[in-house]
Order: sequence, then C-alpha cells, then structure tokens
Amino acid sequence: MKKDTLRVLPLGGLGEIGKNMTVLEVDGRMLMVDAGVRFPSPEMHGVDLVLPDFTYVLEHADRLDGIFITHGHEDHLGALPFVLRELDREAPPVFGRRLTMAMARSKLDEHRLRDVELNALEPGEVVTVGPFVVELIHLTHSIPDAAGVLVTTPPGRVLITGDYRFDQSPVDGRPADFDRLARLGSEGLLLLCGDSTNADRDGFAPSESAVGPALFDVFARCEGRIVVTSFASNIHRVAQVVRAADELGRKVALVGRSMVKNVKIGRSLGHITIPDGTLIQPRQIGDFPDDELVIISTGSQGEPLSALRRMAYGEHQQVSLRAGDTVVFSATSVPGNERAVNETIDRLYQLGCDVVTAAQAPVHTSGHGYREELKLMLNLTRPRYLMPFHGDFKRIHLHALLAESVGITPDRVFRGENGRPLEIDAEGARFAEPVQAGMMFVDGLGVGDPEDAALHDRRALSRDGIVFVVAIAAQESDDEPVAAPEVILRGVPAAGGVDTLTEQLRGAVQKTLARAAREHIHDPQHLQEIVHDDLAALVYTLTKRRPMIIPVIVEI
Amino acid sequence: MKKDTLRVLPLGGLGEIGKNMTVLEVDGRMLMVDAGVRFPSPEMHGVDLVLPDFTYVLEHADRLDGIFITHGHEDHLGALPFVLRELDREAPPVFGRRLTMAMARSKLDEHRLRDVELNALEPGEVVTVGPFVVELIHLTHSIPDAAGVLVTTPPGRVLITGDYRFDQSPVDGRPADFDRLARLGSEGLLLLCGDSTNADRDGFAPSESAVGPALFDVFARCEGRIVVTSFASNIHRVAQVVRAADELGRKVALVGRSMVKNVKIGRSLGHITIPDGTLIQPRQIGDFPDDELVIISTGSQGEPLSALRRMAYGEHQQVSLRAGDTVVFSATSVPGNERAVNETIDRLYQLGCDVVTAAQAPVHTSGHGYREELKLMLNLTRPRYLMPFHGDFKRIHLHALLAESVGITPDRVFRGENGRPLEIDAEGARFAEPVQAGMMFVDGLGVGDPEDAALHDRRALSRDGIVFVVAIAAQESDDEPVAAPEVILRGVPAAGGVDTLTEQLRGAVQKTLARAAREHIHDPQHLQEIVHDDLAALVYTLTKRRPMIIPVIVEI
Repeated sequence: MKKDTLRVLPLGGLGEIGKNMTVLEVDGRMLMVDAGVRFPSPEMHGVDLVLPDFTYVLEHADRLDGIFITHGHEDHLGALPFVLRELDREAPPVFGRRLTMAMARSKLDEHRLRDVELNALEPGEVVTVGPFVVELIHLTHSIPDAAGVLVTTPPGRVLITGDYRFDQSPVDGRPADFDRLARLGSEGLLLLCGDSTNADRDGFAPSESAVGPALFDVFARCEGRIVVTSFASNIHRVAQVVRAADELGRKVALVGRSMVKNVKIGRSLGHITIPDGTLIQPRQIGDFPDDELVIISTGSQGEPLSALRRMAYGEHQQVSLRAGDTVVFSATSVPGNERAVNETIDRLYQLGCDVVTAAQAPVHTSGHGYREELKLMLNLTRPRYLMPFHGDFKRIHLHALLAESVGITPDRVFRGENGRPLEIDAEGARFAEPVQAGMMFVDGLGVGDPEDAALHDRRALSRDGIVFVVAIAAQESDDEPVAAPEVILRGVPAAGGVDTLTEQLRGAVQKTLARAAREHIHDPQHLQEIVHDDLAALVYTLTKRRPMIIPVIVEI
Repeated sequence: MKKDTLRVLPLGGLGEIGKNMTVLEVDGRMLMVDAGVRFPSPEMHGVDLVLPDFTYVLEHADRLDGIFITHGHEDHLGALPFVLRELDREAPPVFGRRLTMAMARSKLDEHRLRDVELNALEPGEVVTVGPFVVELIHLTHSIPDAAGVLVTTPPGRVLITGDYRFDQSPVDGRPADFDRLARLGSEGLLLLCGDSTNADRDGFAPSESAVGPALFDVFARCEGRIVVTSFASNIHRVAQVVRAADELGRKVALVGRSMVKNVKIGRSLGHITIPDGTLIQPRQIGDFPDDELVIISTGSQGEPLSALRRMAYGEHQQVSLRAGDTVVFSATSVPGNERAVNETIDRLYQLGCDVVTAAQAPVHTSGHGYREELKLMLNLTRPRYLMPFHGDFKRIHLHALLAESVGITPDRVFRGENGRPLEIDAEGARFAEPVQAGMMFVDGLGVGDPEDAALHDRRALSRDGIVFVVAIAAQESDDEPVAAPEVILRGVPAAGGVDTLTEQLRGAVQKTLARAAREHIHDPQHLQEIVHDDLAALVYTLTKRRPMIIPVIVEI
C-alpha cells in the first residue's frame, strides 16, 4: 500500500445485520472500530456466538494501535473479549465513552480479562493513536453515550457513525452534536461510513420521549399487573417505564440478570434515577396488589431462557403470568427472532393475558434513523465519498440510492461487503483486493470457523443420527468373531421400535462378518469398510435416513 | 355421550397456524373434516412433517364414516395419506370438490395408496355419510374449488368454513355463494367454525383480480428477465402472471416440480388456459433475449431446495440469476419463514437483481378474509354459536372480539384449543373433557410422537455431539486391558484439535481402567459406569460441553 493511503476494511456488518467491525489502515498501522457479535441461527447447531472473522487482524496483530467502540450494544462491543484473547500480544488500548467503557469493563471481567487499558473519552476530546487522530462525536441512539468515530488521516477525515438517529427531543435533553457535524461538513469530510439499518423506512423515527406518554396511557388502562419487556441496555426506555409506573403509584420490580446489571450501571453513571421506595425486589412481588405493580423484564426477543419466557411457561421462581396481566412489548423483533417472539406472545394470549405491542400503541421507537435522518446526516456532513455501513445488501442498496437523491453521484458511493477494502488516496477511491472475512464461531471454549468438523458433524447428527458398531475380529483366523457385535443407535428414527431395528442391524453385521471370514478378509480397515457399506444400504432401506455409520473392528 | 348430541373436536389448527383437522361426532359415529400438515421448525431436527395427533381417531377407527377436505392446500390435505395409512382398516370414503380430489389423488399416488375412494362433489350436492348429511358451499380462496363443509346433525347445522375470503371480483368470475350462506342464516345455523387467519387485519382484502394489473405494471418497467415466485397451488395467480407476460410478448417458463405439476392439473380442469406458443421449456430459456422472458418459479418461502433458492445461489441447472434480472415475490412469508425469505431476498440484492415484494407494489393479496369479511360471514350466516378456527390464540381472541362487535354475546363464543371437544345438544353448548391432541412427527418412514427418543437424541447431538469409547476387558483378570481403548468423537468442539482431545480422553480412559483393575472391578456394566462418569467430568472441563458419552466395554 502506498504511503498516505487510507484503507477502510469492513470485517463485519455489511451484507448482514450485526457483528460490526471495521479496520482502518494508514502507513502500515491499524485501528479497529467496533467489535460486535451476532447471535447464531438455529442452523448453527449449538454454536454460542458468531464473531466476524478477524484473521486479518490476528495476522497483523503487531500493527494494531487501538480499538474504538461506538456504543455498548452487543453487535458493536460483544466480540471485544474474543479479539483481545486471540491477539497473541499485550492488549492494545481501548477507547469509548463512559457508559460504553463501563459495559466493556463488565464484559471483560466476565472473561477474566483484567489488564486491559480502557479509556473513557468525552466527545470532542482528541486522542492520537499511532498515525490516527481520533475524536468522538455525540449522537443519539437507543443506549446512552452513543458516538460516531471521526478519524483524521493523511488523505482526509473519515466518520464511522456507528448506530445513530437524530432524536430532536431525546430523554436526556442532549440531541446529536449538529454543530460538530455541520462544521465537519464545512471543513471537509472525505468518507462517511453511515448506519443503513432503517434505510427502508420513510420519514423520521418518532422521538424516544414520545414513548413515555404512550406507556403511561397503556398503564393507566390496566387493572392488573403490568409486565414491560425491553432491551436491558435501553436505559432511557427503562427510565421512562419507571417514571410512568411511579406516576400511577405502581412499584417497579426488575427481573432478569442483564436488566438488573444494566440498571445498576445506568444509575451509577446518572443515566437513570429511581425515586426512593419505587423499586422492590422480585421476591416482594407477592406482597403488593396486582394494580400496584410494574415488572420490567428481559425477554423481548423471545429468548428461551429469558425471564419473560420462563414467566409465560410457569418456570419462573417469582412470577407466573395469568389472565388479567398485561404484557407490554416495548421493543420490536430483531430480524430472525420473529418466530420466538410470536411464540411467546401467543403463549401469553393462551394464558389469557392482554398483550400490547408496537402494532397496537406507540410503546416503542427505533434507535436507528429513518430515511430523512440518513439524508440529514449526508446534508450535514457533505462527504466526498459514502460507504453505507450496518445493513444487509438490500439496505446498503437503498442507502446508496438515498445518497444519489441528495446529489452524491453514484461514482462517489461505494457499496461494499465484508472483507473488501476501500482505498483512498489523493487520486481518488477504489476497492482493493479482498481479504479473508466471514464468520467465526464461539463453540464451547474455542473460536473456530464455520467449516469446522465438529459443527459439520452436529449438522449431520441433528438430521440423521448415528449408528455405532463394535465387533471383534480374531487376528488371522477364519473363525467367526468370538463375541457378537454390538450395534448402538442414537437419533435414528425406528418406526418399529429401537430394539427391533438394532436387532436387524446386528444380524446384518453378523452376516457381513461371516461372509468376510469365508472370504478370508481379516484386515480391520477392510472389514470396517464392508461393514459400513452393507449397513449404510440396509439402514437407508429400513429408515429412509442416512445416519453416520461408525464401525469399530477390534483386533485381539 | 347422550343421543342426539353433536361433538365438535378440533385436533389441529387451533392455537397454531397449520395442520387443520376436525372430527364431528354424533351417536357414536365420526366424520373428519380436513387432514392437514405443518412444516417443521428448525428445532425439530430432521423431522420431515408435523401432523395433528390423531390417536383419538385411530382408537375409534371403526366409527369413521368419511373424510371431507375443504380445499387442496397442504395444511388441509397434506396429512390425508398418513391418516389413511395408519387407520387399521379399509379406507373410509373421501369427499371434496374436483380440484381438491385431483390433488388428493396425486398425493395418494405418491404414497402408493391406490384403493381409496375419492368422491368429487359439486357445491349444493347433498350426500349422506352415516348420520351426517353433508353439503359443500362454494367459497373463494387462493386456490380454486375452495368450499365450506355444511353438516346437518340432530341438534342442528354446523358450517366449517375452511380457508376463505369474500373476493367480490374473483379471477374466474365466481364469487362465494352469498345466496346459500344467507339462506343458511335464515334457516338457522347452530355453529360456525370460521377461519381466523386474518382476524388481525382491518378492512377487506384486495381482490385477487387486482394483482394481474399490478404484475403487468411491474413487468412493463422491466428491461431484463423477470422471475415471479408464488405458491404453485395459487392457480389463478399463475394464470394472471401468464396473461401479463403474454400481453407484453414475453414467453413463460415454469420452474420447480410442484409448479409444473399444479399447472398441469389446473389446465386439465380448465382453471388456467395458456395461449399457444407462450409456454417454453426451462432448457429453452437461453434461446430468448432477456426482455422476452418470464420465469415462474417455486421458492416464495425461501425453501432451501426450491428452484428460486438454487437459482440465487448458482445451483440451478437452467437458470442463474444476475444483475438486470427482476425477481417478483407474488406471495408473503408464512409465519416462521421470514428468515429464509429475507436471506433469499438479500442474496438477490447481492447479485444486483432488482426485487419487488408486496411492500413495494400490490403484487400479492391474501386468500384469507380480513376483519370486515369475517364480520360479513357472521352477518350472513347468523350462527347461534361461534368457534373461531384456523388461528393462533391471538387470532382466536381477536375473532371472538369481532363476533361480540356484531352482537354475538360472549356466552355464545367458544375459544377452543386442539383436543377440547365442544358438545352441543338441545340444552346448549359447552366444552367437554379434553382428549389426546398435539403433534405427531413424520420421521423417516414412521409416524411418531414428539417425545420420541430418536428426536430427543438428535436434539442433544445437535447441541453437544457424542463421544464413543470402546475398550476390552479381559474377563476376571486383574491384568490391564489387552488392547488400548478407542475414543471416537463426533460433533464435540475441540479448540486444540480433534486429535489432541481424542488423545487426552483416551489417556483418561486408560487411567480409569487401570484404576478399576487395581480395585478388582471387572463387571462390564460397572466399568461402563465409571468410564462414563470420569469422562463426562473431563470432557466438560476441556470443552464446556456435555456430549453424550457411550462406553462399550467388550468382554473377551
């Protein structure tokens, strides 16, 4: 790479929703912006988490000067412990705003990563990290302390917005820093890497501060208990639920580990204040009449182990839901979670609960700017180049079209994908040769790639099961084996019963071994092959499945 | 059950979307209405199909006088071959309209069930089946020949609507039989079992005949190839696609097995006519310029093996999609399929295709009546009692509220669930004791219940994998085993490599066996237990997973 060239390499978040990660490169040095995760889909059997493939970073670990995190959501912060653990070197310094760093600290503590330097920055504060001069710009989002990362490099400035919206009346009274963004526009912005999440939604997103009154109206009509579920990190939302409850004389209980944790962090940093006497412990819920309670719970995404799900299925220690309760979903389904959320909602209807979602009342608003907000960002910052970030290919496409509608010609818009670096120098911008990118899986204790044999095996096992055969072959003898073979099935559908199928297969193995003995076949490898092939054909005939077949021929 | 009592027993379709099945009982005789399937969710590892649990029917198989099918969709017809196969008796006669019976025939042929009596009825034709007097009433839906089943019984008449809407200008010019429904209202309807699928949508569904012009408008703007995906059974939709293509001088190719099959059946019964020279074979696609082609394809639900999905991933023999192609989704996602559909759409954007869905243009309409249509059905037929059918608990709840809004008092509305029979006699209606209901799984060749061991095992295997151990114990000897133990892993995540983990486990087994020999433990059962327990603890420490552990100790 030539001197004074800027390379912007997205490793996650393009062509997908989640696991955001970007690497900036100048003169052989690297800066990482965001390190997020995605949640596994049901096809990723048993995988715990999905990370961006950051092999490129690991291969050049010594060049990494620092990591900036735009805000504390899992899809921007969740991969940080894995990145730090896999780097075969002392951890580079990590930067972000106060709440973001508090959430990073809590996360690193869980992973016993205690020696990492976490630097809390104020917006406007300028730090120099290697060849990069970096400043955070205050933006609004569905978590406090969201920031865009502005990096000054030899060819010019690049702004990675992270997730944002332009809330004109935010709950904490601090709208995005329009002044700084406008100045940036006048001074000159080389490249904008902007959030595309809501590039398919017209207009402006309703203000977060409109949600509080809507919650109050819903609560005021309820005669029984109220359960509100929301993202635990949406601290302003939780604050608004608490305020509405308090105004109606209801007590508030927090249920779910992450809810309790995030409210604690939020309170300690002053993002949420709870009047004395309002908060009660979950075990005290039984001490209050139904119409004096609001329970704030995790589980807005239908997560199987979440508090709300357990309450709905009678598996929660302190709360079980029943007719007369109202459950308010102050959140929408993240794409992919629709089924789990709908299951939870339907279970609540089955119990006779009333359910209120954003479809019935404005009890939720998005943290991501709609189309007019994306255009406002473009008009404020007037970038030379745009690279739509944070979105699937459809949303990147729509964001690119929006840019054209505000006068950014198509040659200045770069529709990227993970692993495809954009290079910008004095002569212009262009895509360079792609580097390795994709997914890495957290699977048990390790971090592996999706082509991992264990996952392949689990996929096959989950579909068709497995057949084990153990047989003993007496060495170099034409006698039949000294012991009857053992056949063990797991997960193979047996229409006529497992015992019958096992006996059928065992008989077939015996026949195969007898035939082999007559044919003087003794080599265990060879025996294994013929047992495998005979059995595979028979199992398919009997079950119409193709389980894994593992013969073990023991020589004695 | 007392004489002259009617029992209405839903076995599927209540508290869920799909696998509709209802049993009517009078004086110890039974009639089945619909026999539908549901498609398995990803949690049902490898299960092929989900059926209603019809154990109750099997236990009283001799009482079953006939089966009526309302229309040819899988969620009403798909379980028919399994019901007929599991019944341990000669098949009862099956009834339905012509297209429905043609589709039933094709399905039964696939299952080699050739001796079933299929009776095609015209609407208005009255047949007597045991104590039941039955008549089909013409309704409109997203497949031709949809019908409600009207059954006259001693306490009165019950109408099971099946799926319906009131299309005021259907493509074939045959609106629902308003006259018959209104006469039913005047003569007296005891019980309406009505479709609740769209009880959450306000107003009237747009007419099917409005889709054709919308398709024409979209097609007219396209400069490249056009691919339209839709349900293959929506024969009027396919007819409208063909007409729009023909008007624009484009040839039509049908891609996907069920598309070809359904169009063939539809043509033979006169539901679709295709002008000479319009239809081409998929292998001829390359012979025509891009702007003279429309491809009609399966895959509107993102099914992994469907034609559209394979075209999008370059795995289709005749067609691979590229920039310049337009893909029109003339369908919406069935709940649960959102993820697969969105994946397909995003893949198409990645290829540079243009994608048109019902969100951008009115290229789809629902086959299920909206709220005003459900009210129209109630006002036409004026039933004494209502039991909302075909919907999850939320939609059943909403349908019940709608009934109240047109003057049906809550005591006349029965919110049921699968397995809960409604009994009606001269004195009134009430729920009776529930019978067995739920799901049965088609798993390989057999039909089993969800608690089936094979499925349980596959669920465990898919999460954590399996460890097999084979060791040989010399009988009653304190010597160490004659051969080293074998350890085989499948699906267990091995952060440090499978070979390393296998060696670690093999070493542990050897130690355990040596210890057992020192302690004079020879009983294979006992040895298996201690090997299992030692290994389980070690595997968890090394992998943080709990795979199945299967030790086989062979005595020689």
